[in-house]
This record gives sequence, structure tokens and C-alpha cells, in this order.
Amino acid sequence: MGKMPIGEGQLYLGIDGGGSKTKAILLSQQGQVLGEGVAGPANPLHGVEQTFTSIKLAAELALEDAGLDVDQLPRLVAGAGLAGVNLPELYQVVEQWVHPFGQFHLTTDLHIACLGAHNGEDGAVIISGTGSCGYAHTGNKSLIVGAHGFPFGDKGSGAWLGLEALKHALMASDGLAPAGPLKHRIETALDAQGIDMVSRMAGATSRDYARLAPIVIELAQAGDPTSLALVQDGADYLAAVAEKLLALKPGRLSMIGGVAGPLQAWMPEAILASVQPAIAAPEMGAFLFARKQLALLEKTA
Amino acid sequence: MGKMPIGEGQLYLGIDGGGSKTKAILLSQQGQVLGEGVAGPANPLHGVEQTFTSIKLAAELALEDAGLDVDQLPRLVAGAGLAGVNLPELYQVVEQWVHPFGQFHLTTDLHIACLGAHNGEDGAVIISGTGSCGYAHTGNKSLIVGAHGFPFGDKGSGAWLGLEALKHALMASDGLAPAGPLKHRIETALDAQGIDMVSRMAGATSRDYARLAPIVIELAQAGDPTSLALVQDGADYLAAVAEKLLALKPGRLSMIGGVAGPLQAWMPEAILASVQPAIAAPEMGAFLFARKQLALLEKTA
Repeated sequence: MGKMPIGEGQLYLGIDGGGSKTKAILLSQQGQVLGEGVAGPANPLHGVEQTFTSIKLAAELALEDAGLDVDQLPRLVAGAGLAGVNLPELYQVVEQWVHPFGQFHLTTDLHIACLGAHNGEDGAVIISGTGSCGYAHTGNKSLIVGAHGFPFGDKGSGAWLGLEALKHALMASDGLAPAGPLKHRIETALDAQGIDMVSRMAGATSRDYARLAPIVIELAQAGDPTSLALVQDGADYLAAVAEKLLALKPGRLSMIGGVAGPLQAWMPEAILASVQPAIAAPEMGAFLFARKQLALLEKTA
Repeated sequence: MGKMPIGEGQLYLGIDGGGSKTKAILLSQQGQVLGEGVAGPANPLHGVEQTFTSIKLAAELALEDAGLDVDQLPRLVAGAGLAGVNLPELYQVVEQWVHPFGQFHLTTDLHIACLGAHNGEDGAVIISGTGSCGYAHTGNKSLIVGAHGFPFGDKGSGAWLGLEALKHALMASDGLAPAGPLKHRIETALDAQGIDMVSRMAGATSRDYARLAPIVIELAQAGDPTSLALVQDGADYLAAVAEKLLALKPGRLSMIGGVAGPLQAWMPEAILASVQPAIAAPEMGAFLFARKQLALLEKTA
């Protein structure tokens, strides 16, 4: 974005930090986007220092993109939604960061996704991409369902689908499950058979497993019974999460992420009737969060 | 063991290397145990250098235990069964070790467990401890079932039971599964509830998960339906593995490991009728393997 004069109003940063990248947007008081920057991962569960480095770099790039000097960081009120800080211990570690901003308001990736999806209003979100979780905010109540991480949580996510598909392929290669198209497609994707699939996936991360998920979804769409059973199990879980969230009467429910979309085909109509598109992206939710936190501080000051 | 004169015959080492420890026994040509040594882990999947260090140390300790000098290593014909070398890539890496022995014969942990269990004769084994697998050897045919490792394999093992129990406890803490005794016992074991269970188990290894397995087995024995469903699922898998192995008509089938024993209570009578106790330990199987390999070499020389 072009060179911008520094306006009179407060400047904000909205930061969406995740396991693969960090996105920061620079905004005016009115919510006009002035610049944006993208840096590396910011998931404190996988590295706190990397998280701080990525956030600072994404912020500096957003300033540069707006034609501002990086020495303007102390002017900014930043809001950040990060994966992993639903763990109380990690929240505290990140909160204690000696950050370079004027203010740094921290919350979960779930919270900013929800704020973005509903433009700062009450609502609920189900996120299913690499991982899965549900979040609802109504009045002053909020509820997190899932967000437990891989491999013990994240049911109905891409990583979960990929892991279950690999389990099936290994079972089938032992003759303990039917050797159908799912086994063959996983073998092709890994360019390996039997025990060599294990060599390929030893030490695999949730993102590695999630790369196998599109195979399962595609085969389920084509009617393969094994793949259908897996996506139905995942969709049933997301439907159960949706019911928990809708019980709070959040008004709006959005489903976000690359796996949430396709899995809706196997969810009950009664739940889909409540699903509405997300209005804005998570980083916009992070901005709305930061602006609200500043307003609260000024009110109590 | 006391000071031993060096006999005239060949000396052998039987080495059982696993994820937690390495056991080496020193034996005479006739199979008399002269000394033993225990060192750290020898699972090349988790570290090849550590594997070599542990094997060498266990061997030296076995020599010392027999009252011999460690400079006798080059006199020894060693047989080693290691976890992980069912992966062809790892087998090759370990095979290329510039080892300190006279000879070093490498095979899988499954093979030596089977040789030990049936005193060098044909037979089959199902191992379920931290991980799970099946192995049969008849004539010149052998079959591995499972041995895929955690988290995509190892069904019916301690690690698998522990992971499934944690999944259940997290589901139950979200209100998506019944909050029964299994949830409460896992919470107590981890001294945590809800998302704090995730903090406790983040980065957990298969051994960490396996530590939760006795809870599931105990509750299943007491009739808890959730725990019963889990152990039945695991026992069904081990029964299916047993059927695959018994189809090769191996003569004897032994079930080895801390989880294999209790899970027999949920396996069909038809399979249990074929189960016989293991005759000797895996390190004795490694000795039998080494002695046989030497005999083969001498025959072809």
C-alpha cells in the first residue's frame, strides 16, 4: 500500500498468529486497513521466541507497507490472537513478553476468529483446518469446545482425517482392513507401501497429516465407504460441537477453515440452517479486540 | 556373576535393544549365561548414536560381570534384536555400524522375541507392551503384522489405550462423552482437568501414554462400560493379528508384554487355546540367532 501520512487518530495492529504464519494488519481508529505484513509461525506451543520474532516482524512489515517507519511500533495498540494460549501456562508466558508496542492485548486465535466472523458482535465459530475447535461468545460468557491439539484432540480436522486415513492404509496393508481406494491413494500420495509408509510419516507433524485429508474428502464425495465412514465420524463430532455452541444462543454460527466447508455435506440440516458466512478475517477480529480493550481502559482510567 | 576363566569355545552376546533399555547377556557355545549388562535405550528410530553407545556399554558390562576384560569385545559373536529395524532404511543404517565385535548379526526385536519364546523353533508371538505387533516364523517364511509405531499403529498396546483414554477424558470434559470413572481417574493421574490435561500431555511420548493404560485395564476389569469398550477394541485387534499369524500354522503362539496378558481376558477362547507361555527371554533369542548365523557362515565358508 502506498505512502500514507500519519493521521491524528490512534493506530492499531490486528495480529493473527498461527502454526504456519503470522498476519498483521495496520488500521486506523475507524478500521481502515493502512498496511499489512506476513511473517513466520507464531504458535507459542512450538516456540515462544519464534512467536515474538514473527509478531514483531509482521508488525514492522505492516508499518513499512503503510509507508511508516518501524520506529512507530511504540505508537501502536496491538491486538493478537494466538494458537495455544488457551493453555493458561502459555497465556502467562506470552503475557509477560516485553513487547515493542504501546499496548499489547492478547487473546486466543478462537476469540479473534469469532470477533472477525461476526464483526465484533456475539456469535460462535467452528474452525476445522489443520486442527479443530469451537468457540462461542454471548454477553460476557464464552465457551471453548475442543482446541485440545493433536493427536489427542482435533477430531473432525484435516490432521485427524489424515491420521485416520494412514491408520486405515496400514491396517489394510496387513490384510486387517479392506484394500480399497483409500489405501491405494494414500500409498500413491506417500509413494510408499506397507512399512515404508511408516518411514515416510515417522515424526510427521499435524500439518503433514492434514495434507492427506483432501484424499479422504474427495473419495467420500465419490462414495468410497471407508472414506465416507471417516468423514461422517468427523462431521458428527463437529455437529456435536455445534450443538454445544448453539445451546448458548450465540445468534450467528460460522464455520471456518479448509475442512469445515466440505464436511458440512455430512452435517444435519438443523445445524446447517444456523450457519452463516464469516463477515471478516481473524486479523480484523484482532483489531476489533484491541480497539475494544483500549476503550475499556480509557473508560476505567 | 563371579570371575570366570575364559573357556576354549566361542563366546556370544545376546542383545535385546528397546526404547527404554538395552540388555546384553554373554553366553558360552552351549548357551550358559556367563554375565549380563544393562544400558540405556537402543531404538535407532530415536537415535542411532545412542543405540550404538548403549549396545557397546551393555556388552562391556556383560563382559565385566563375567570377570572378563572389555578388550575381549572383538572375540564375541553378537546377535542383536532392535526395535525400529523393521524399517528397511534403519536396518541399513545400523548394518553399516563399524561395530567393536568379532561379528554383529542384526535382526528385529520381533524376531528375537519369537526365537526366545519358542527356544529357536518355529512359532509366533504377539507383543503388547508400550507398542504392539505380531510376528510369525515357519520354515523360511516370516510375517510381521503391525509394528507400525505410535500414533498411527500400535493398536491394542499400552500407548494406544492411554491415548484413547485421554481422548475420552477430553471429550467428557467438553460434555461430549459421559463423565464416568475413566475421566475422573485420568484427571487424578494427571492432577489436572480440562485444558490443563493438554498442558500435562503436550509432547508426550508413547511411554507417557502407556503409563495411563493400567487405569483403563483396571476399570474394564471392574466393569466400567467406556473402559470395557476400549479394551475390547484393543483385544479384537490383537485377536485379528493372532488369526493372521495362526494361518501360517506356526505351531506355538506366545503373548508377551505387560498389556498382552490382561487383554487375553477379552479375546476369543479359540485363539487363547493356541497360546502357550514364552520359553525364554528375547536376549536369549538374540543369542540363538547369533549362534545360528555363525553356523551358517561356517557351513558356507
